[in-house]
Amino acid sequence: MKKKLRIGLAGFGVVGQGLFDVLQKSPALDAKIVKICVKNKKERALPSDMFCYSANELINDENINLIVELISDAYEAYHIVTSALRNGKNVVSANKKMIAENLAELIELQKKYNVSLLYEASACGSIPVIRNLEEYYDNDLLLSVTGILNGSSNYILSKIFDCNKGYAESLKEAQDLGFAEADPSFDVDGFDSLFKLVILTAHSFGTIVNPDDVLHYGISNISDFDIRYAKEKGYKIKLVGQVEKQEENKISLFVLPRLVKKDKYIYNVEDEFNGVVIKGLAYDKQFMFGKGAGGHPTGSAVLSDITAIGHDYKYEYKKKNYYKEFLYEQSGEIEIYLRYKKQEDLAQFKFISISEEYSGPECNYKIGLISIKDLLAIKSRLREMDIFIAVTRKTLNY
Amino acid sequence: MKKKLRIGLAGFGVVGQGLFDVLQKSPALDAKIVKICVKNKKERALPSDMFCYSANELINDENINLIVELISDAYEAYHIVTSALRNGKNVVSANKKMIAENLAELIELQKKYNVSLLYEASACGSIPVIRNLEEYYDNDLLLSVTGILNGSSNYILSKIFDCNKGYAESLKEAQDLGFAEADPSFDVDGFDSLFKLVILTAHSFGTIVNPDDVLHYGISNISDFDIRYAKEKGYKIKLVGQVEKQEENKISLFVLPRLVKKDKYIYNVEDEFNGVVIKGLAYDKQFMFGKGAGGHPTGSAVLSDITAIGHDYKYEYKKKNYYKEFLYEQSGEIEIYLRYKKQEDLAQFKFISISEEYSGPECNYKIGLISIKDLLAIKSRLREMDIFIAVTRKTLNY
Repeated sequence: MKKKLRIGLAGFGVVGQGLFDVLQKSPALDAKIVKICVKNKKERALPSDMFCYSANELINDENINLIVELISDAYEAYHIVTSALRNGKNVVSANKKMIAENLAELIELQKKYNVSLLYEASACGSIPVIRNLEEYYDNDLLLSVTGILNGSSNYILSKIFDCNKGYAESLKEAQDLGFAEADPSFDVDGFDSLFKLVILTAHSFGTIVNPDDVLHYGISNISDFDIRYAKEKGYKIKLVGQVEKQEENKISLFVLPRLVKKDKYIYNVEDEFNGVVIKGLAYDKQFMFGKGAGGHPTGSAVLSDITAIGHDYKYEYKKKNYYKEFLYEQSGEIEIYLRYKKQEDLAQFKFISISEEYSGPECNYKIGLISIKDLLAIKSRLREMDIFIAVTRKTLNY
Repeated sequence: MKKKLRIGLAGFGVVGQGLFDVLQKSPALDAKIVKICVKNKKERALPSDMFCYSANELINDENINLIVELISDAYEAYHIVTSALRNGKNVVSANKKMIAENLAELIELQKKYNVSLLYEASACGSIPVIRNLEEYYDNDLLLSVTGILNGSSNYILSKIFDCNKGYAESLKEAQDLGFAEADPSFDVDGFDSLFKLVILTAHSFGTIVNPDDVLHYGISNISDFDIRYAKEKGYKIKLVGQVEKQEENKISLFVLPRLVKKDKYIYNVEDEFNGVVIKGLAYDKQFMFGKGAGGHPTGSAVLSDITAIGHDYKYEYKKKNYYKEFLYEQSGEIEIYLRYKKQEDLAQFKFISISEEYSGPECNYKIGLISIKDLLAIKSRLREMDIFIAVTRKTLNY
């Protein structure tokens, strides 16, 4: 029943080492890391003959029947994963960017070469959200998936809202603790959440969406004014990704900061934790919560994929293959809080209606309805303006 | 890939009708209820030729390839489920008592007749906890599973702690709303939680435990004094089931009221909701939360089992089959709060040590360490004494 797994590991960073540790704690599993591909030669705790410096050595090694890809470079990861699949090897990957950007091809390759690619660790770290969307929520009932998908930005927001720190100080703390990269943009500008959301969308509604086509905006422009505003009104700001069924066969998705009230499940998701709310007909809301970052939690998700490979598990992409097609269309409207200084920035936003507005010596804000399509059209400029945007209340199905 | 399912449904109560509704909302699923077995003839909304009055009619109907058993009588359910399995039919059941009491035989029958029995709805309603324990937490990392497993008693405790009502009033409210049976003992005395815990234990650690051998005690003896005590100290009382790995290859399990502080995940699980904390090496704690009772939430879990049957899914009982054996042994010690009036009741409890004690005009309490084995020995008498017990702090691995 169970397959003997001889693993070729690409990457030996935080997650790779986490996996190595976690595997040591799982003696019952018949899986062994036989070779590790790394970029640079240096002194390491493991014997040097465990290491190689070209991924092709793993891919072409007949003694290896599973490639685990845990490197950060998405381009390199793409090469490793696709070559391995083409070479008839099963693969486990945690590279959200690479997966989100190449999902259609990766699905095709799995089919063509009759191999399995699992990537639970690519979304929400240790929380088994992909597997549950694929296997348990595999019916017509699903309405939406909403969640805090990025541990680094959530850590920063927690420090801001629970410890009364500023953005810059909180970011530095996150970096010092290894929760955020030296270039934090991938996390704080919502790219990481975006890629995860694209992956979750494929397993929620079967739709393969190009990340470039999705509205996403992060927290790097948050100001003390925004923080004060949120606190005064009893909100926390969270960076939230959401995919939601609309009327007919349409879905909408976006990653945006959100003003969250105490009565929401995600209000209490703090620090490096992730939390996902799955909403559906009949069961209403379900909530899954766990560590979204860190070598060991992510390593444990990789481990679950490895054991699943041992049991010949494959994603069937059930929503895509067995259900009616959902089209991605940014047709909805949302209500946003827009903090701005200059009129020329404000002029970029085509508000449908305004419910509140404020002008002051420090800056101004407006709260009003805007179409997602119009926001998407100016996506590339959003980060450059001296503004901050947060969803206050979604008007469709929320 | 997907099998056409023609369902014979046994039972048309709250969950059966919930399933019927939920199936209507799932047009993409190729599953149809072709016949429903009920106890009594009466006027119903569906055509009368949909109904039959003997389960054998379902079991022997060659047109039916899946039996869904949703009746409350465990003895009758046992007959239906085992006969159906023997007759080569796959089965979905939600009968926790029947499953917990016959698990070893049910596993054997599945193997012998090469059929699948799924029962996600038997534990925690809509939360996919069995499936996750089986498929995702299928490694050596798991340390414990702890949860609020019974929606009815949790509803009652929520009314007591959040709405300042008494036990009797809260119970009546739960009964009026259909959350508790006319004879509420199954829920409030911990039987329901016990059966669910036994099922979760099989999928967590692979150990088949006889429910009779497990310590369980509910909330029916809770008094205003206990409630006041808990509130003064900043606790809520929750009815909690827990299975936990001990040193070597041993597990301990029990269902007991627990004094829960605000920092625990289960503190905020209110009303008819269930919440399960899964603790393990590497990923630390994960939390799953959702509706634990009601026709539609439970119906949605049954639906997930039905679609899984359509994809030829079977529980592999991975922990039992692929991992080292865990022995059930009530060897641990716990710290309990014991409220009592009479010395003769107190004399039944062999405290190892006492950390607090109080005597007053109304009643007395002691807080101290006691062995689980000693509590188990007087299990049958616990409910008859004028006492209340709650775990204050578990001393092993907690």
